[in-house]
Amino acid sequence: MQQRVEDLKRLFGQVHDLNAAANVLEWDQETYMPDGAAEARAHQVATLRRLAHECFTADEVGTLLESLATETQTLDPGTTQASLVRVGRRDYEKAVRIPASLVAAMAEAVARGKQAWREARATNTYAVFAPHLERLIELNVQKAEALGYNEHIYDALLDQFEEGMQASTVEAVFNALRAELVPIVHAIAEREIPEDNFLHQRFDTQKQWDFGLEVIKDFGYDFRRGRLDRSAHPFTTAFSITDVRLTTRLDEQYLPTAFFGTLHECGHGLYEQGIDLTLNRTPLADGTSLGMHESQSRLWENLVGRSRVFWKHYYPRLQAFFPEQLAGISLETFYRGINRVRPSLIRVEADEVTYNLHIMLRFELEQSMLEGRVAVGELPERWRAKMEEYLGVCPETDADGVLQDIHWSLGALGYFPTYAFGNLMSVQLFEQACLDLPGLEDQMAEGQFDALLGWLRTNIHQYGRTLQAAEILKRITGEDLQAAPWLAYIREKYGKIYGAL
Amino acid sequence: MQQRVEDLKRLFGQVHDLNAAANVLEWDQETYMPDGAAEARAHQVATLRRLAHECFTADEVGTLLESLATETQTLDPGTTQASLVRVGRRDYEKAVRIPASLVAAMAEAVARGKQAWREARATNTYAVFAPHLERLIELNVQKAEALGYNEHIYDALLDQFEEGMQASTVEAVFNALRAELVPIVHAIAEREIPEDNFLHQRFDTQKQWDFGLEVIKDFGYDFRRGRLDRSAHPFTTAFSITDVRLTTRLDEQYLPTAFFGTLHECGHGLYEQGIDLTLNRTPLADGTSLGMHESQSRLWENLVGRSRVFWKHYYPRLQAFFPEQLAGISLETFYRGINRVRPSLIRVEADEVTYNLHIMLRFELEQSMLEGRVAVGELPERWRAKMEEYLGVCPETDADGVLQDIHWSLGALGYFPTYAFGNLMSVQLFEQACLDLPGLEDQMAEGQFDALLGWLRTNIHQYGRTLQAAEILKRITGEDLQAAPWLAYIREKYGKIYGAL
Repeated sequence: MQQRVEDLKRLFGQVHDLNAAANVLEWDQETYMPDGAAEARAHQVATLRRLAHECFTADEVGTLLESLATETQTLDPGTTQASLVRVGRRDYEKAVRIPASLVAAMAEAVARGKQAWREARATNTYAVFAPHLERLIELNVQKAEALGYNEHIYDALLDQFEEGMQASTVEAVFNALRAELVPIVHAIAEREIPEDNFLHQRFDTQKQWDFGLEVIKDFGYDFRRGRLDRSAHPFTTAFSITDVRLTTRLDEQYLPTAFFGTLHECGHGLYEQGIDLTLNRTPLADGTSLGMHESQSRLWENLVGRSRVFWKHYYPRLQAFFPEQLAGISLETFYRGINRVRPSLIRVEADEVTYNLHIMLRFELEQSMLEGRVAVGELPERWRAKMEEYLGVCPETDADGVLQDIHWSLGALGYFPTYAFGNLMSVQLFEQACLDLPGLEDQMAEGQFDALLGWLRTNIHQYGRTLQAAEILKRITGEDLQAAPWLAYIREKYGKIYGAL
Repeated sequence: MQQRVEDLKRLFGQVHDLNAAANVLEWDQETYMPDGAAEARAHQVATLRRLAHECFTADEVGTLLESLATETQTLDPGTTQASLVRVGRRDYEKAVRIPASLVAAMAEAVARGKQAWREARATNTYAVFAPHLERLIELNVQKAEALGYNEHIYDALLDQFEEGMQASTVEAVFNALRAELVPIVHAIAEREIPEDNFLHQRFDTQKQWDFGLEVIKDFGYDFRRGRLDRSAHPFTTAFSITDVRLTTRLDEQYLPTAFFGTLHECGHGLYEQGIDLTLNRTPLADGTSLGMHESQSRLWENLVGRSRVFWKHYYPRLQAFFPEQLAGISLETFYRGINRVRPSLIRVEADEVTYNLHIMLRFELEQSMLEGRVAVGELPERWRAKMEEYLGVCPETDADGVLQDIHWSLGALGYFPTYAFGNLMSVQLFEQACLDLPGLEDQMAEGQFDALLGWLRTNIHQYGRTLQAAEILKRITGEDLQAAPWLAYIREKYGKIYGAL
């Protein structure tokens, strides 16, 4: 058996190397690549991804996985060998179920769709994108049928990003969430809005950069195994557990953009850096789901970075960087300013409270479209109606409405809900961390994060994909994904700012 | 036939993409990669290079090349199709002749050899490197035998870097060169040395950077299809004709390092950027030989960048960047300073006049070792004797002698002579450019390089590997590689600085 495990690891290692190389090329494209290279780069990435897919779906891999599946049945499922075969088989089954013709059709539809979406958004012309969206939904239906599902077609798509999650579960959680959250948001909209003008000033970008670096170093981000660069849209990518790259964007006129973006990406990066090194170059060396990944980014961005205790330590530091801009702004005023809630049109600019409503809206529309209950042509109107209902605001243009996100143009349906899972889980996990680490608040107020990071590594990061998100959550909290803890956190935190909610 | 040409292009395109990706990963490793990622990166690059080799040596490629070789015989050899098959076949023949076992043995010997060389150089202990060098020579002999040659074993190794060049030709040219150059160098060593203290001051690195950028923009380097970054050792790499990257290093205490390094790499980069775009993603999209490549870097670095007319325009610009450091230093003093000649120990620091002697010494020692006339153990002594004879200086340590270059530790024998070819050809080519472009000197004195770059593109760059170096040189100058023009240039230029030579 040992020899066959080694063979499997060698084959997986090759697939990993090809995908890692593609990730490097994509990272370079977003950070340093000159504009003129776009076409050549597209060829290069396509070749690498295609070869990675070919190598992974080779018969040799399937045969090895089959024979090892029987042999590893007697092993503890937590062992690397058993996990490698279990997770490898799941990935393999998915990969071989989708016919090459569908992969090619999807790639072409995405290339055209992305182009059309850019034009549609720039010119605020939904009709330019609509036929492409129609095609992408059609292909997603084919994909879901090829992948298979028990209950709902949505399950197959969701499973690509959040393994094992069911649409029915999402619906139940979102229903609970919506019922309480919509009234909270409407209530806040009636209250007095905290001042945040002081966040809109000229903040030297180099100083913003330096302050962000200082904080993520304190968080424990390892620069010997990672780096931070600039890009138009912040992201995190990993080429191995020992090479995890973050990017952020800088807005000279608005302080929170770079800072919370950096903290957010750092949360993703800490997850990748915390995976057990023995899992390197295997399919296990990755976050276990997008939701769990987002729980880590949101935990550091919001639960830590937007907390009062955090700023107790860091606000004087920030004031030292920007003495003029923050002169006379008290810690309390600053804290309220960065936690200002305001129903708004754009998801990526949404605050902690309203963000999940943007997600629920997208989830509901995706379901309707997949089931054929809503036609692509009706989408803008449905969007506006739901925005009005949930957030009490309505986009005047489709560019600020249904056209605002890139995801659908990339063919990614079933992706959005993972953002909300991350928000909900971040609170469920952080509350348990607070129980397990009694001095945590005091440590955070001193800029000490070793214990928190250690707790996350021990309970979540190290496992990579060895455990699924739901298993990890259950082990840690004893619960499944729930809306109640997050709602309680929101009521508690924002009740203090806005008055009881 | 057309279909088979398309098939061949598709297969070559895939190989190109894999090698381009490996180049991106190696570029990243030298510029931005965090230290901790070295091991993972080694795996990734090895996988990409191995797959590129496998794809290129696939039977399908061989079969296509064979059938197309007959069919393209009637075509003009200058057509892309004929060139693609001709050059593709040459590469294919070489690639399949070297057995996989030898490729693996070489890779292992290089990995160990590089490590040993670093240690040997750091501790000045030749004995640490000697057994590895012995092994690398043995493997190079095997490689040469596998590749085959007519006259001399050295031909097979040289052909990897300078296609079609014979060791006997090199010997004849180097003999002619040595006979005149050694007396010139010895004569210069007796003359008064120009002042160059002013080059050794504190020069703000950002200003150095900006000045270098300004000049290579004037040269015509296209930043929409390239960029300049910092690295420990300057290099140029291309991921496609539309993505050519340069690097340079900055020395705050010595002005020439970054500046001439940047010009040198820009010369390489202009060559790569000038290749006909229709050759992209084929084996033709590369410099035709290392010698021709070096002729371009040396032309811009030396024939342009160390000329009097060049500084007529740029010295006032440089003084504006560094008014304090260059106050009171006349253009003539500056020009003499940057053209100071001094026999020295280290090749990469050698001036224009003495550089070729460093190369000849290495060429002669490589030949002796391959023929078994000099044992690895005798090398340090032979090195010192030749340094004394050619340059009149003798290294006190092996670190400053036989251990100074990385090339042998990488298994690259037959590489060094291409540096000298570049020097000699740069003069042969530039002289013809001056004849063809009567106003060239005046243009250079105005910071205008369009005509020169256009001439190089038309006569050299656009062809990529469609023509071999010797063919290009012959077409342009009517001559083969020659020492005389370079010697005449040196006598003329340095005679004016040092008195008649």
